[in-house]
Formats: sequence, C-alpha cells, structure tokens
Amino acid sequence: MNKMNIHRYLPVLLLLICAAVVTAQEPTPTPKLNLMPVPASVQFHNERLPVDSSFRVATRGYADARLTGGISRFMRRLEGRTVLTFAPGIAPDDQTTPLIVNCQGPGQNIPAVGENESYRIDITSRQALLTAPTVIGALRGLETLLQLLDADRNGYFVPGVQIEDQPRFPWRGLLIDVGRHFQTMEVLKRNLDAMAAVKLNVLHWHLTEDQGFRVESKKFPKLHQLGSDGNYYTQDQVREIIAYARDRGIRVVPEFDIPGHSTSWLVGYPELGSAPGPYTIERRPGIFEPALDPTREEVYKFLDTFLGEMAVLFPDDYLHIGGDENEGKQWDRNPAIQAYMKQKGIKDNHALQAYCNTRLLKILQKHKKKMIGWDEILQPELPKDVVIHSWRGTAALAEAARKGYDGILSNGYYIDLIQPASQHYVADPLPANSTLTPQEAKHVLGSEATMWAEWVTPETIDSRIWPRTAAIAERLWSPRTVADVPDMYRRLAVISLQLEELGLTHRKNQDMMLRRLVRNDDIGPLRTLVSVIEPVKEYRRYEQRPQTMLSPLTGVVDAATPDSETARKFSWMVSEFLNDGPRFQLYRAELSEMLAGWQTSGAALGPVIDRSPALKEIKPLAQNLTQLGETGLQAISYLKLNMPPPKEWRETSIAKLDEASKPYGALEFVVVSGVKQLVNSAAELKE
Amino acid sequence: MNKMNIHRYLPVLLLLICAAVVTAQEPTPTPKLNLMPVPASVQFHNERLPVDSSFRVATRGYADARLTGGISRFMRRLEGRTVLTFAPGIAPDDQTTPLIVNCQGPGQNIPAVGENESYRIDITSRQALLTAPTVIGALRGLETLLQLLDADRNGYFVPGVQIEDQPRFPWRGLLIDVGRHFQTMEVLKRNLDAMAAVKLNVLHWHLTEDQGFRVESKKFPKLHQLGSDGNYYTQDQVREIIAYARDRGIRVVPEFDIPGHSTSWLVGYPELGSAPGPYTIERRPGIFEPALDPTREEVYKFLDTFLGEMAVLFPDDYLHIGGDENEGKQWDRNPAIQAYMKQKGIKDNHALQAYCNTRLLKILQKHKKKMIGWDEILQPELPKDVVIHSWRGTAALAEAARKGYDGILSNGYYIDLIQPASQHYVADPLPANSTLTPQEAKHVLGSEATMWAEWVTPETIDSRIWPRTAAIAERLWSPRTVADVPDMYRRLAVISLQLEELGLTHRKNQDMMLRRLVRNDDIGPLRTLVSVIEPVKEYRRYEQRPQTMLSPLTGVVDAATPDSETARKFSWMVSEFLNDGPRFQLYRAELSEMLAGWQTSGAALGPVIDRSPALKEIKPLAQNLTQLGETGLQAISYLKLNMPPPKEWRETSIAKLDEASKPYGALEFVVVSGVKQLVNSAAELKE
Repeated sequence: MNKMNIHRYLPVLLLLICAAVVTAQEPTPTPKLNLMPVPASVQFHNERLPVDSSFRVATRGYADARLTGGISRFMRRLEGRTVLTFAPGIAPDDQTTPLIVNCQGPGQNIPAVGENESYRIDITSRQALLTAPTVIGALRGLETLLQLLDADRNGYFVPGVQIEDQPRFPWRGLLIDVGRHFQTMEVLKRNLDAMAAVKLNVLHWHLTEDQGFRVESKKFPKLHQLGSDGNYYTQDQVREIIAYARDRGIRVVPEFDIPGHSTSWLVGYPELGSAPGPYTIERRPGIFEPALDPTREEVYKFLDTFLGEMAVLFPDDYLHIGGDENEGKQWDRNPAIQAYMKQKGIKDNHALQAYCNTRLLKILQKHKKKMIGWDEILQPELPKDVVIHSWRGTAALAEAARKGYDGILSNGYYIDLIQPASQHYVADPLPANSTLTPQEAKHVLGSEATMWAEWVTPETIDSRIWPRTAAIAERLWSPRTVADVPDMYRRLAVISLQLEELGLTHRKNQDMMLRRLVRNDDIGPLRTLVSVIEPVKEYRRYEQRPQTMLSPLTGVVDAATPDSETARKFSWMVSEFLNDGPRFQLYRAELSEMLAGWQTSGAALGPVIDRSPALKEIKPLAQNLTQLGETGLQAISYLKLNMPPPKEWRETSIAKLDEASKPYGALEFVVVSGVKQLVNSAAELKE
Repeated sequence: MNKMNIHRYLPVLLLLICAAVVTAQEPTPTPKLNLMPVPASVQFHNERLPVDSSFRVATRGYADARLTGGISRFMRRLEGRTVLTFAPGIAPDDQTTPLIVNCQGPGQNIPAVGENESYRIDITSRQALLTAPTVIGALRGLETLLQLLDADRNGYFVPGVQIEDQPRFPWRGLLIDVGRHFQTMEVLKRNLDAMAAVKLNVLHWHLTEDQGFRVESKKFPKLHQLGSDGNYYTQDQVREIIAYARDRGIRVVPEFDIPGHSTSWLVGYPELGSAPGPYTIERRPGIFEPALDPTREEVYKFLDTFLGEMAVLFPDDYLHIGGDENEGKQWDRNPAIQAYMKQKGIKDNHALQAYCNTRLLKILQKHKKKMIGWDEILQPELPKDVVIHSWRGTAALAEAARKGYDGILSNGYYIDLIQPASQHYVADPLPANSTLTPQEAKHVLGSEATMWAEWVTPETIDSRIWPRTAAIAERLWSPRTVADVPDMYRRLAVISLQLEELGLTHRKNQDMMLRRLVRNDDIGPLRTLVSVIEPVKEYRRYEQRPQTMLSPLTGVVDAATPDSETARKFSWMVSEFLNDGPRFQLYRAELSEMLAGWQTSGAALGPVIDRSPALKEIKPLAQNLTQLGETGLQAISYLKLNMPPPKEWRETSIAKLDEASKPYGALEFVVVSGVKQLVNSAAELKE
C-alpha cells in the first residue's frame, strides 16, 4: 500500500482487522489473480466489496455518453454473470454507492497514439473507486473490475485491492484480414468487444487483397462492385465500426495494400495495372504478380482521389499502405516501366517501390495522414515521419528505431500460423536484451497480432484469434517481468470463458462443427481425437490440403484449434508421473484413464468415419490415436510393475510413434512426445 | 411410381436392377426419410445419385437473381456439410449435370397468400431434376434436396426418389415479438433462414408493444426515439429484412398493436392516450391499461399518417393491427370518452373497439392494405375482407370461417409456453372432426407459431423457437395424416442439427450459458441436471421468479430448454423395462447408469453451487436429482431381485417424488412420473 495514503486507508485497515477477526474460522486464501493483462501494480487487502442486487455505479467529475455507455455495458455484463437485476441508470454519488467512477476528462475525441489509458482502482469493503484521467482510462478500469469479480457461498464480490495501471506500449493491435475471407459486421463487433476486454487499442483493418476489395468507394465504385463478390462494407458500415471501436477506446487503422496484393483493384480498373489484364479476383492463397504501375501519373491521380476519399472516411491519424511482398515481376516484363526506370535512373524494383512510396507519402501528407507500411517500405530516402510495421522481426524494428523511425512489430504474433500462446507470449517488441537507448526504444510503439484470413470464415475466425490473442495483449500492456507461462495459461482459461459473454464463438462452435461432420449428436470419440491434435503449423496446411478461397472451411482441420489444453495437461502429468519413479504412482490413474480413452475413441471412430465421408481424411489419425493410447498404457504398465519390456518392444513402439507423428488431413498429434517419454522411460528400466 | 411415366423411368429401372446386382452383397435398407415437413407424396427407387466434387447445378427454363441466389446458398450449404469444393456458378444444362432446376416462371413479385409453392423432384442415378412452376416452389424443393443428402462409406449421395409436393395451408407463419425484448438483425436473418429450411412462409413481425416501439417512423420520430431505448429498426433495416425474406419466399406481415398494448407509443405522444399521462416504457410483463383514445379525430389522423407511412414501407398485402387484450379501463375512467359513447349510442367497450376497428379498416383500405387482427376484432358489423387471427382456438376460427371470414390460428402454437413439440404437433387449424364445409374450410388459411418475448434475448430466443417450430411447420405443410409422433421426434433431432448450419444457437448456447453459471469448464453435473428439468410451463415462470424486461436472462431457467430429449428417452426405457417383467432385463443397464448419473451429479453440484451464488436457486433441485436417482435405483434393484420392498418404502419413496415434483427457480423435473412408475411396480411385487 502506498504509504503516502495511509491516512486514507486507516479506516479500511481497521475494518480489515475486524474482518479478519470475523472470518477467522474461514481463512481467506492468498487471492489468485485472474487479471489479464496483469496490471502494473496490484496490492490486496484482506476484505471484499459485495456485489448484490443493490449494486450501482455513480460518476464523479467528468462524464459523457461514451463513459455512461461503457458503464451501462459493464452493468449488463455484471448482471449476466450474477443473474442479478440492478437498478437501471447512473446512481447518485454518495457514501453508499458501491462503485464510483471518477473521470477527469474526455481524453482525445478520436482515439490516438499516446492517449492516456491509465487508471486506478481502490476497493474497500464499503466502496470501489475507479479514477482515471480520461474516459478511455476509465473504460480500461471497468474491464479490470469485471475480471476482479469473484464469488463464494456468501455471494458475489470484488476483492479489496489497490491497482495502479497503465500500458507498457501505446500501440496494441489486432489485424483482421477481411480481404481473403470477408468477415461480417457481427464478427468485427464481437472482436472489438473482446479486444476492449483485454485492453487492445488498435483494429488494423486489412481491407484490400488480391482476393477481395472490401470497402465501398463512391469515387471509384468498380473497386467494390467488381472486386468483392458483393462482400464489402458500405461507408455507413465503416462509420458504424469506427464509432463502435471509438466507444471502446479503440483506434481503427485502415490498410489499402499497394502496389502489390492489388489484383482485386484491377478487376474494375485494369488500366492501373503493370500488365494489360483483364484481371479476375484471385481465389488461391499465395503471392501474386499483379501490381499497380508506379510509373504512370494517372495511377497517382487515382490514388490521390481514392486515398483522399478514404482519409475522410477513416479519422485515425494513420493510414497503412501495405507495400509488402511485391516481387515486381509485372514491372520486369513491362517495357514502358523498364524505359521509365532507365530514364529516371531507378536502378531496381526496390528503388521503384521506394519512388512509389515517396509519391504516396506526399499524397498522404496532403490528406493529413501519417503513413505506415510493412518492412519493405523502409528505403534510404524515406522521411522519418513514416511508421515501419515489421513482419521481419525485432532486429529490423530495432534497426528502424536506431534510424529514428517509429515502428510496430508483428513478427512473433502471426496468430494464423497456429502456434501456441506460449510462443507468442515470449515474443517481445522490446526484448530484455535490446541494445536500444531509452530514446531509441521510444520509437518502438508496440505490436499487432495478425489474423491473416486464408483459412478462416465467420464460423471459425474467433477460434483462431481467441484466447491466444489475450496472451499477446498482456505482453503489450503488462510490465516485461510478467512472464510466468503456467500462470498465463491458468488465467487464459478463465478469460477464455469470460470472452464468451461477448458473443465470441471460439468455444461453442467446435461442438457444432463436430456434430455437422458426424451427422449426429454422438461426437464424443471425435471430440477426444480433436482434443489432442492441432492443425499443422506455419504454411503447411495449404501444401498438405490445398483449397481455394471459395472452399468450405468446415473440415476437421477447421474444427480443431491451436494450443491444445489437453496436450498441455497430458505433458505435465507425464512429467510428474515420471518424476515420481520408481514409485510411478502420481497421476497414474489419470494418465491411464486418458490413454484408455484414446484407445477406445480411436476404435469407436471407425464406424463414425464410415458414415461420414468428410471424415475419411482422418482415418489414419483415428488408428494412430488407438496406437498412442495402447502404447502409452503398455509403457505405464511396465513402469508400474518395474518390469523391463522385451527388447523389441521399444523399437516397435517408437515405430508406431513415428507413424503417429505424421500429419493427415493437415492435422497432427501434439501428444506424441509425451508418449515417447513414457516409452523411453519404460525401455530404460533395469532388470 | 407414377405409371404414366413408366416409359420415362424405364432406363432408370434397368440401371436400378444393375445397381441391385452390383450391391447385392450390401443390401440397401429401406430408406428412412429425414424430411421435415414430409412431402405430399414420396416414392423411392433403389438407386442413388452421388454428390461428389463434380456436383453442379444448371437451370432450365426461367431463372432470375432470386433463383440463382437460392442455388448459390444451396451449394454453399452442401459444400459445408460434405467439405467438398464445387465449381462455382451455374453449370451448362446437359445430360451430365447432376442437378437441373427447371422453373417455369418467377411467381409473384412480392410473396403473397396463395403463391404456388409446389415442386417436383425426380432423382435417378444419373441426374436430379427439380421442377417448379415458380421460383418459390424451386426454393422449397432445394430445401428438400438438402434434407435428402445422405452418406455411407461410398460417399455422399441423394437417394433415388420421386417427390410431388405442395403445402396444405397457404399461411404458415412465425410471429417474433421484438417489442418486449428487442432482437438483432442477425437473429431475424438466421431465423428467416431456418423458416425457409422448414418451408414456413410468413414472418409476423410484432413490432410494437407496451415495452417497446421498434420501427423508425420518419413522420412521428418520437415513437421510436422515446419508445425504444434506442433499440429499433431503421427503415433501411426493415427493407433489408423484407428483401432477405423475399429472397427466401417469405412474406413479412408487420403488426402495430392498437388500441391497447400501446404504452410505448404514448411515451412520445401522450396526447393520443385515453388518460393524460405522462407515460414511460413499461418494464413489467402483463396486460396494461394504456390505450389510444378511439373517440378523437386527431388519433385517426395520426394513425392515417403513421399507417400510411408503414403501408409504403411494408409491401405485403396485409397489415396486422393487433386489437387484443384491451380491457378499456382507461376508457371507463375518461369522462370525455364516456360522454362520446353516450352521444353516439356506443353501448360498451367492445362496441367502442369495434367502432375503432371500422375506422381503422377504412384507413387501411385507403392505403391498399387488408386488415388482420386478433379474435377480439371480430364484431358483428365487421366487413368480410378482414382476417381473424385466433389465439382463442379452432372453434373461434371455425365460427369466423362459417361467417365468411378468412382466419389463421395461433392457439396451440404458443411456443413461448415451453410445451413439448408433440403438443403443438397435434394441434390442427382444420382438425379431422371439423364440421366446416369444403367451401368454409378454405377460409382457414393456416397458422402462426408465436414467439412472445417476455423471457427471451438474442442469446436464448433460438432455443425457444427451434427445433419445436419445425414440427409446427410440418403440421401446416404436410397432409393431415402425417401424424406419427415418435417419427416426428426422430426426424426433429436430425433437422435440429441441420438448422445449426444456418447460424442458429439453439444447441450451442446452452453449454456456454452453463459455463458462465458454473464459472469454469466443469459443467458435467449441471448439464445432467439441466437435461431432465424444464422451465415451468404456461405463465408460471413470472409467478415463481419475477423479473422485468431489463433483467438478465442468464439463469438456469434460461439455459434449460423445453421438450427434454433425455426425459423422453428415460420414459421410453422405463416402459420397455417394465414391460419386460418379471425378467426386468431390457434397458436395465442403461436405466441404472442414467439413474446413477443423477445420483452422483446431484451430489457433485453441492460444491459447484457453493462457488456460484447464481446457482443457489437450484440447490433443492440438485438434492432432488440425487433422490430421484437413488429412488429409481432402489426400485430397479427390488424389481431385478423380484423382492418386494419393505412396506414403508413405497410411502417414503412417493414422498420423495412428491418433493421432487415441486418447482424451484421456475424449473421442474420432467422425469418424476417415470421414476414413480418404477416405484409403483416395485411396490406391487408379490412375496
């Protein structure tokens, strides 16, 4: 507790002592925080503020519609969890009002980089006080309060706590690619709610791709009319999303990816391209040749008009121009472009793209926007007021920072690559071993998780974003020292459930998808399989199971999710069990039950697959599930009896595990190494 | 098979014989239809048309955007289920195209009563042909085709079949009350999709209530501004819903309930009321006094303008004016109204309402709308071109028909009352014992299921509508003779899963709600309890567990659903088991396992409830679950041993069951009678 405030807390301390006496028979355990992101500073007192049907909120100081709207949503969520009905509206500010929100001012009218998001929470047994310099700080604090809600047989409560909090980085984003697969308004809104719940503050709206142009242009209507299959956001809808985000203290940064990744632009306006066309919307994943022609004045005139229109539509200070993955093949083949380069002394395609960026920068400056683009835009002659968005890594980011460029990092946060939360969690835009000076470090603004959308639809996208992105949000908000992976996973499980109240489908759609695949309710065996497999990582899915952007994403690979909780639990139990040797007692029953479940589920899947041809691709996985269960059980049995297995057993078993390591249907087991540990331990038993 | 077409089917028959030879080792079982509603006529041939990645659709005859849109949705759903990628777009019409849709014309531009919805399907092993006189008929047929999809180890297929189909009634509706609880666009759209899937063709949009005025009026903006808490549909959104419905062959009939049920109108326009006001939005459920003043010309002038505005917005021929449940208490107390009645010789409130309706009818006629209203509008002087919507019953409907009024029935289809599908299924707007002449019977247009919305939110509404409404849809479409309840339930389970592909949440939201209540993943015991309880029926919920329209609907009563499948299964197994006496072997193991599960789940719920105060209300249910399990197991044990129980056992057991019959938390067990049968049978064992 802050000593300077001791006089303020004296009554509380006395109460606390009384409370301690009263509850002496039932000692309060050390409170386990379920906060994510972990606040900068938290201190507990041994007391609690009840949350019952008399719960109300008053405002003190500044209040506006954004704040009262936030309070109203807060109240509804609290009611939803507690099944209590609170009196509607804002309460009078008096000594009995359970929660006072004391806000000093509105903050920026349009959320901006560097907005003050700090807040402070003081909870005693009589009242909770949330203090913040801005409405956005207050909104962040309300989310913390919701995460503080706890309960026991005496009722719902928030613990006595003092929190002082502010973010580590000012730019904490989520990129949603709506180009490759269009995402509905509903998807965007519920994800904005979820972002707010974990204190993310930037929606990077990746609006254009080879596979789709997703925003209405009144200046160039053929962009969305011919480039989107009818799946685009009207300008009214764009404004609706921006307002929705603003209400939650979230910036919306649009991206219009140029000069590459622009096939969908060229369907309606082939004359902008570096090859004559005609162009059709791209349906495959990958990197494609079409690129705007950076040597023609009409192209810049077009971009001036179009970006001018977008600059008005999107109020954020920044506009992202992409600039990535343009290999320049169309440029190489275009004699006019080659002639232009020669004439102007532009030595290669990099220099040509740099020239294009310089022109773009002027256009954006004219429209009062700061330019942001991917690594590739960083060219020697680039002015310093451009932000570098690094998919390459911290080294590239640090290099840019040293040169004086602001930057954000996405390397390490590519959530489309199906890696575990733990892997993203250790990525840090400003790692402990950074050699940047404090001044240089300030150029590192933060990071964005990137939801590239080759393989996600509205039905599955939530399960690719959440809950892992909450761990990334913590990395960007909390002090660098908050880095305990098991504790992160413990809290992530809690937060994952809370995210469901916002309408997110990352949990509930899985069983539905399994029911569709199985064509009835008996999904038990398939669910068991799915709990120990994951989609293959990085870019291997397409290699192993090619599909187009028009294919159904309703297979087992789509129902399966990253970062299997069952696999983590299994691996942990195996460690504990093996460490318990030579007794081999700890978790033996649980492991045996789990392995037996694999064995029977694998067998039970046979007839299920026979009546569901869409499951045929996982037939080898079902067989390997049985093998994994059987092999694991054998190993445990040898260990339990302290009986060395026959010599050939190890070899046979390892061969089975090697087979079980192979992916099928772009899915792979994530429990093989645990079973292998069991096998090796058994094989090493001495006579 | 239709003999007149034998020449057409000869090649097919030959193929069929060949196929029969080829598959001789694996005889095709008698196909089990999963169609709902059951078509008017179905005949199987022993063959099948494969559905593989070469599946495509061609149109023949008439085609328009509504048809190709429907085909495109059909293809997406087929892809979703089979995880196959089909070639996009419409295929050429040739002998190898798997599905030909042959449509003769567009049908009515705006869906209307009496639209030709018939279609015919002929599937051979080479091709499927869907023929329909209108696009709407074709859309109905496409839904049947989706329900025909089947699979085995050889792949997906549709069976060889000849279907001739048309509806029994032309008006097959679902009323959604958005007044008491607002429902999002998303809810309406997914329910329109589900309606189309079971061939319902009217969305009755109950737009105004004491508790909310839900449509934007540009003429009288205070209606939606002050009467809706901001929860209303803009006129653009209304048009969007109408277009969405039209695309699926569904009419949208708006209801503006007057003169009663109109509190929300009077918040902005108190001068229309029969008492001076001021008025506030009603938050309670029930019947309230506020009513428009039918004696004042300004009120009719207002209604003329407002209904004129709505008549343009809603293109359907019909406009529903409500007219129900006005008790006239405000009228009794208003001296000006009393004086007016005396002066005009209006003898009572019924006559005054009839006077009001006559005036309303003129207004609607002026705006080219047919009037529809609830039973109460039927007054002697009412012209014959008004449609009666009966909540009273078939007798009232028949009476109206005899007098020459068209009518629709909702009595028997109040899905808000939590009754089983079987109960709705036996209700018939034109029962077998009807004494109406064929001419009179034509006045019975059909029925509407009514989703009154006192206790539903977007999170729970689907679970109150589906799957039960599919059984009602069958009653209204299929021949009266389709009435096998067990077969209805068999098919309902299949359809229920298929409805999930449309985004419906009737299945998937339950576990989510249980997770929120339990505050973690361990929902097993609570799920077991919820599987054998149901919300109390009819209007008892509010009596037992009063809430307002602002209360959270997130309790166990909201997570529980009507028409427990587990209870049906239990009851059936009990019958089979008891019929198997004195052996008492059949289903004994299954029953014992189920009862033991209740016993342990009831006990396991104790600590769960202790850490979740919102579950406190179900504590007695948890205890009774254990008692039910224990008592049932005892009975089975006596029966198995053929050992009469001690005399006092029966009395003690029945007392326990009586306790278990009591509702708690507005929830009640639906398995008590089954356990009672076990107890009574055991008690009757002879020494």
